[in-house]
Formats: sequence, C-alpha cells, structure tokens
Amino acid sequence: MNAPLPSHLLPEIKQRELPVELIDALKARFAERCSTALVVREQHGRDESSYAVPPPAAVVFAQSTQDVADVVKLAAQYRVPVIPFGVGTSLEGHLLAVQGGISVDVSRMNQVLSINAEDLTVTVQPGVTRKQLNEAVKSTGLFFPIDPGADATLGGMSATRASGTNAVRYGTMRENVLALEVVTASGKVIRTGTRAKKSSAGYDLTRLMVGSEGTLGVITEVTVRLYPLPEAISAATCSFPSIEAAVRTTIALIQMGVPIARVELIDGNTVRMVNAHSKLGLREETMLLMEFHGSPSSVKEQAELVQELANEHGGQAFEWASTPEERTRLWTARHNAYFAALQSRPGCRAISTDTCVPISRLADCLLESIAEVDASGIPYFLVGHVGDGNFHFGYLIDPNLPHEREVAEALNNKLVSRALALEGTCTGEHGIGLHKMDFLVTETGDGAVDMMRTIKHALDPDNIMNPGKIFSW
Amino acid sequence: MNAPLPSHLLPEIKQRELPVELIDALKARFAERCSTALVVREQHGRDESSYAVPPPAAVVFAQSTQDVADVVKLAAQYRVPVIPFGVGTSLEGHLLAVQGGISVDVSRMNQVLSINAEDLTVTVQPGVTRKQLNEAVKSTGLFFPIDPGADATLGGMSATRASGTNAVRYGTMRENVLALEVVTASGKVIRTGTRAKKSSAGYDLTRLMVGSEGTLGVITEVTVRLYPLPEAISAATCSFPSIEAAVRTTIALIQMGVPIARVELIDGNTVRMVNAHSKLGLREETMLLMEFHGSPSSVKEQAELVQELANEHGGQAFEWASTPEERTRLWTARHNAYFAALQSRPGCRAISTDTCVPISRLADCLLESIAEVDASGIPYFLVGHVGDGNFHFGYLIDPNLPHEREVAEALNNKLVSRALALEGTCTGEHGIGLHKMDFLVTETGDGAVDMMRTIKHALDPDNIMNPGKIFSW
Repeated sequence: MNAPLPSHLLPEIKQRELPVELIDALKARFAERCSTALVVREQHGRDESSYAVPPPAAVVFAQSTQDVADVVKLAAQYRVPVIPFGVGTSLEGHLLAVQGGISVDVSRMNQVLSINAEDLTVTVQPGVTRKQLNEAVKSTGLFFPIDPGADATLGGMSATRASGTNAVRYGTMRENVLALEVVTASGKVIRTGTRAKKSSAGYDLTRLMVGSEGTLGVITEVTVRLYPLPEAISAATCSFPSIEAAVRTTIALIQMGVPIARVELIDGNTVRMVNAHSKLGLREETMLLMEFHGSPSSVKEQAELVQELANEHGGQAFEWASTPEERTRLWTARHNAYFAALQSRPGCRAISTDTCVPISRLADCLLESIAEVDASGIPYFLVGHVGDGNFHFGYLIDPNLPHEREVAEALNNKLVSRALALEGTCTGEHGIGLHKMDFLVTETGDGAVDMMRTIKHALDPDNIMNPGKIFSW
Repeated sequence: MNAPLPSHLLPEIKQRELPVELIDALKARFAERCSTALVVREQHGRDESSYAVPPPAAVVFAQSTQDVADVVKLAAQYRVPVIPFGVGTSLEGHLLAVQGGISVDVSRMNQVLSINAEDLTVTVQPGVTRKQLNEAVKSTGLFFPIDPGADATLGGMSATRASGTNAVRYGTMRENVLALEVVTASGKVIRTGTRAKKSSAGYDLTRLMVGSEGTLGVITEVTVRLYPLPEAISAATCSFPSIEAAVRTTIALIQMGVPIARVELIDGNTVRMVNAHSKLGLREETMLLMEFHGSPSSVKEQAELVQELANEHGGQAFEWASTPEERTRLWTARHNAYFAALQSRPGCRAISTDTCVPISRLADCLLESIAEVDASGIPYFLVGHVGDGNFHFGYLIDPNLPHEREVAEALNNKLVSRALALEGTCTGEHGIGLHKMDFLVTETGDGAVDMMRTIKHALDPDNIMNPGKIFSW
C-alpha cells in the first residue's frame, strides 16, 4: 500500500488537465505508440518510492529524438507536463506525475550509436541500460564502470547524477558524462559538449543537465567515458568485529590513496538477509566487500596494503573470490541486498536514506545513526559505498502501520541533520525528487535554491519539464 | 603594441559611465582600497591577451566576502560592470573592461581557510595561488595537482575551468572543485555545495560556476580536492624522430590505460628556444616530457611500458630526471616555454591556440596544422598536453606588422575548424573570453549558446558581471 503524499508536498500537486485536442494530436502523430490505457499509465506513474499519486494522462513510446521533440512541442503548446521515463528504477519519486501530463518512455531508444574505442568514449541513446552498454563494448576490451546496482538506463543515470559501487575509483555520472543531446522545454534539440576529454568552452551545460532530474529537458543522447578493462581484477571479503572497525579501515585506506575500485560495507544483519536470499554462506558479521583493479602486481600491492590495514583494525577472514564467476556471485548478492531485505519482512516497504559525508566524519555519522535506529525497533538493512562516505539505511516498514512510517521519517530526518552538520549532503546519488525537497533547502540555503529556481524559470517558463521536483516552483 | 579589437567584437564595447556618486560611495566604503589612479587601472585592464581596450574606471582591493558583496551591491545599484581580478594571467581577454566598470582585485583574499587533510580537501580564498596552496599543504603529505603553468589564483583557475600538465591523470578544475562560495549579481552570498565527495542534491551550481569566467558571479571561496603525494615520482624525457612518432606513442599509452601523470609534447624548435632560455642541453628534437606517479613498483612498471611503446615508434634517448631538483628544473623549463618563445623573437607577441580533440584524432589535427603554419612562414612554438588531446601553438607575431596578425588569425581559424570537424573543442583550458566568442557559436550551435544566454539573462539581468565575454548579450 502506497502512502499519501505528506502534507508539505501537497502544494506540488496541481493536476493539469490534458486537453482532448492534445490527446488527439498525440494519437495522430504516434498512433499505437501513444497509450492512455490505465495499466500502461500506472506502470509509468510509479518508481521505487512509495507514494500514491495519480498516473500520467498519457504515455508516448519515443523511438527517436524527433519523437521526443514532437511530444515536447505539443506539450509546450498546451502547457502540460512531460516526464521522461527509462526503466523506472529511481527512488525519490522522480517519475510521479504529480501534476499529470505525458510520460515519455525512452526505453525503445536503446541503440548504441557509436563506440569510439580508440578514444575511450561511447555514444548511446538514453534507453540503453548499463548492462546492455557493457555487453556492447565488451569486445573492445573497455568497460563502463558506473554501477548503481539496478540495471538503470544511461538517460536516467545522467538525470539523477547516479554513481554506485565503482565511484570511489571512477567517479560518478558527473565525472563520466562527456556530452549530451537534450530536447529543451521549447522542443529544440541542443548538444551540450563535444567528445574532447576536456573543454573550457562556455557554461558547462553538460553538468547542469546531469542531475537535473528531467526538470530542464529530456536527454536524448549520452556520450560517456569508457575505461580499459583492468589487466587484473580481484575481489575479497573481510569480516570485522564491529562496524566501527570496518569504517576505520576504510577511512585509513582512502587517506593513504589506495586506488581501490570498490569498497562496500554490509552490516552483519544485512549479510544474514543476503545469505538467505542469495543462498550464500558469508560470515554473518560486519563485512567489507572489496575489489581491486590494475596490473597483477599493483592489485597484489593494493590487496596486501588493505589486508595490513584491516588487520590493524581487527579485520579477519580475508576471503578471495578468484574466479570471475565467484566475483559475479558476490556482487550480484550485494546488488540484491535491497530485495533480500524486502524479503526478510514479507509485505514491507523500504525507506532508503542516502546521506554522504566527508570521509573523516563517516564513523561519527554512521555510529550515532545506527544507535538511533537500533533503539527505534524498526528493522533495517545497512549497506554503504563507504569509500565515498555514502551509505544507505533501508528502514523496513509495514505500510499498514502509519506509526512505522512516521518513525522511519523521523530517523531519516535526524540522519540528514547529522550529515549536514558534518558538512555532508542529504543525497549522495539518488537525487532530490519529491522526497528531499525540504532537505535541499536546509542543505544549500535559500540563496542557492533561488538560483536553481531562477534557472528553471528561465529555461522552462511554463514549468512543463517534470514539474514539482527538486524545489517548489 | 596592442591591437585594436577586431570589428566583429566592437558591439561588445559599450563603455558605461561610472557615476560620480558611485565613486564617492566606493571611496567612502573602501578608502584607499578603492583606486582610480590610471596606473592601477591600467594594471587591471589587461591580461596576457593582446587587445587594446580602455581600463576599468576604478579598482577595489577586496579583503573579504563582505567587501566583494558590497562592491557588487553598489555596482548593481548603478548598473555598472564588475570584473573579478586575481593575478592577471588569463589569456583570452577575460579581464578587459570592454564596458568599463569596477575591477575587483581579490589578490589580498589569500588565506588558506581550512585544510582537511583527513578528507583530502582544502578551502581557500580566491586569491590563493596554486604554488601558495601547495606550500601550505606540503606538511600534510598532500598536494593539489592542477597546474596551468602560470602561478594563477584558485579563483581564476575555477573561473576559466583551468587544467594543465597533470590533467591527464587528475582531471581539470571541473573534476577537482568540490564547492564554491559565490557573490551573485545582486550581491547575495551563496554556497554551491558541501565537502561531501559526491552529491545528487539539485542542480550542479558548482560546475555551472566553474568556467563561467566571472559572468555569473564573483567566486569568494573555493573548496578543492587534494591527493596524497605519490610515494614515488619519476620524470623522463624521450626524443622522437618526428612529431607523428611522439603523438602515436602518446595515443598508444592512453589507449592502454597507463595512468601516466604528465605527458607533454614539445617540438624540436621549441626545445631549442627552451634550451636558450633555461640554459639546458636537451636534444633539439621532438620530445615527450613525462612524469609517473605511484608506488615504486607501479612507477617502474609504467615507465617500462612507456619505454617499450616509445621504442616501437622510434623513440630513443630516454633520459631520467631522478632527483626532485632535476625534475623541477625540467618542469620549470617546460612552463617557461612561453617566455622562452617570446624571447626568441624580441618584441613579438604570442597568439596562443588551445584546441583539444579526441585522442584518436590528435595526429590528424596536429600534423595538418603544423604543415599550414610551416608554410605560412610565421615563427611559432608548439607545446601540448597531448595525453588529453590538447595542444597550443603560439604564433610569434610582430605586433607592428598587421599582416602577421592576420596570417596568425587565419591559421587559428583553420585549426579550430579542423578541431571542430574532428569532434573537438576550440578551447581545452583557456576559456572563451573575448577572443573565441564566434568559435563558441560554431562549436556548440546557436541552441546551446541561447541556453547559456538565457541563464545569464536570468541570473544577471542588468549584465553587470564581466559583460561582453563568452557570448554577446
């Protein structure tokens, strides 16, 4: 059961009517690729967040940039919202049609347009997913490292400035998108950059669009950086006597500049859920799950150094996943932690947190928050991209018990306040969407949000691009 | 002798009057820190570019964010331009007061505000220079890698999205600025981010400001990333039988993913100038100047791999700079190439190019352009951050011979056209300023420039922040 929107978000709910002439025009232009069937609209009116909002009035399945431009032009003419949709994996209510309008599904725009292996770049349509992309470039010896867990689309990952497990070494979408093609609010098609690795040519429209959550335009092409597949990869798990010990190990290795590719924290409780879900026999203690990339000797060097650091903090039982199959099994289990947790409490919903703090503040932020959630009695999972200072609690609430949701929201509020006091952010990688609009103001101050709003008003004066998200109009 | 502005830029010249009341108000607020002396104004009315434009009407030496905010508020009240000034090393006319106004000199805002060694971050005032910064953090075992050659300020480097020799490994200001404090066009003070390593919290105002060349606000604080000083550093030079051989070696090592820290091309002619200026005995042939960072074994591994690649392309005479002193001497010589070149033709001025192309296109772009400049008879220097596909010709013209300037401009036009056709950019790191406004339109198209202009109009409706730069109003 999805919850009603909290009252402070109600002002964003202003369902705009979709005029019959607009529906007619869309049907004339797109025929069966424009659907008003309830089941299709409902599929496009939700994401992984848990609020009940009416679905969009129509869904258009775009197959080209021209399709997107044509939808946006019609929407602009009638001043109705346009909400880009990839595969629906966003977490913060980005896809909810709070003001009605048209969902533009770009999942059929899934062509890999050009692989430029010699430049370590690739250009794709926005509906290409990260797994599809890695499959497509496999034969070149290159890979795309950004991995938010879900098999999200490159368009969606760009729109939310996604990152994930490899970001500690390879950066986020912010660092890895080189250029975009975007349909603006007036239906114009622009390019935000070139394939050059660096540029000082005017305002950084690429970075402005990355993370703008569909509120400034619809992304119709994405050029990203690729990396040579490391000569050697090795993965290991290491168990720790406490979360603090695992976190202190992580802090030490980051401060020493170890170029670790992945370092993920999973608490003992979550390991138990993962074991049950993925039929694994991992030690049910706090664990770091790590991966090292490099030449055989540099991987060995990194691993030895990390083992030494872990030992100093009481880490033990370093276990190596030496074959690609074992590695895949471990990382799949890690990525399924979310579903494993949901399964651990049948019928529950997860409310995910996403704070990110400077690495030196990580222990403070995490340990106090764990004490709070333990005291609350709400079951939870805990995983973290701890090398970046980013971690996620998932509060596993019974949606039929409003009290649990309130407790979970209160816990998240306290966590965010703590992270902000420690010079961190309310969202490391999920975005603001609907749920974190108040946090954004607290985090950046009115002045910065005013600047964002001024840009939005200028670029989208009729507020048709995914309205009601990030900040109030 | 500086040249008059080319006629297509004349529309940007609209000297606005500075009302006497404003001067009085500035003098009342800043006393002797507000100067209208011609010599001071002239110092602040030029940069390393070569156009003759009247100086600003007044210069204010700011000592705090509040000072900057007060200048901007007064300027806003009277609608006169504000031009931020650091140490005057920009190359594209960024500092020229084409519409008159007030130069805000931030060089006295030169405090390192907080070193957070355990988080690998530092926050500085905008007048701190990169050498000063590295001196200040030296004892922590960390360093700031971005190195544009000149000892520029962090404010200026942020404003132009600078990079330089280390960018091939460590990225540019785009990747290394975490957060800014900015005084907006209305005199408000905003913060664009936190110290968290990553964030998805709303529009990326940090990246919007980085590279905006003072046209959207005055940067008053900069938080950047630091890196652990590598355990081992080694530098080497290698001579090549041709520029093509050096470029092909570079392309190969980038495509293999060698994490080289610096790889600079210097052509034989420029080596000769450098030898004369810096009293060195480098082989006067095309040369790659390289630096490797890492653990001792990884540095050794990288160096061996690069030697092998160089040998395959006919590279020879690998020479190692093993002591820090030798390294410093080599890099100082490289950084002085510009002055060495100026010295090689007494009285000349250098017109610098700054194209950047995808690495696979580098040989095409460079070799054809060399043939053109050789045919023209204009003396030149050639240096390049070739690992990024970025290189600079400096056409050494006699400013008293208008014909030479015309030839140089024509050569640059051809070079830029070629770089754009090869999916590159007209400016890898210098910025657009005054000189490349037309190139920006060609490169990004009207649509993208319109979007930049719309943002500018919204954030600075009276066009007081460094007007006449990047694009026409």
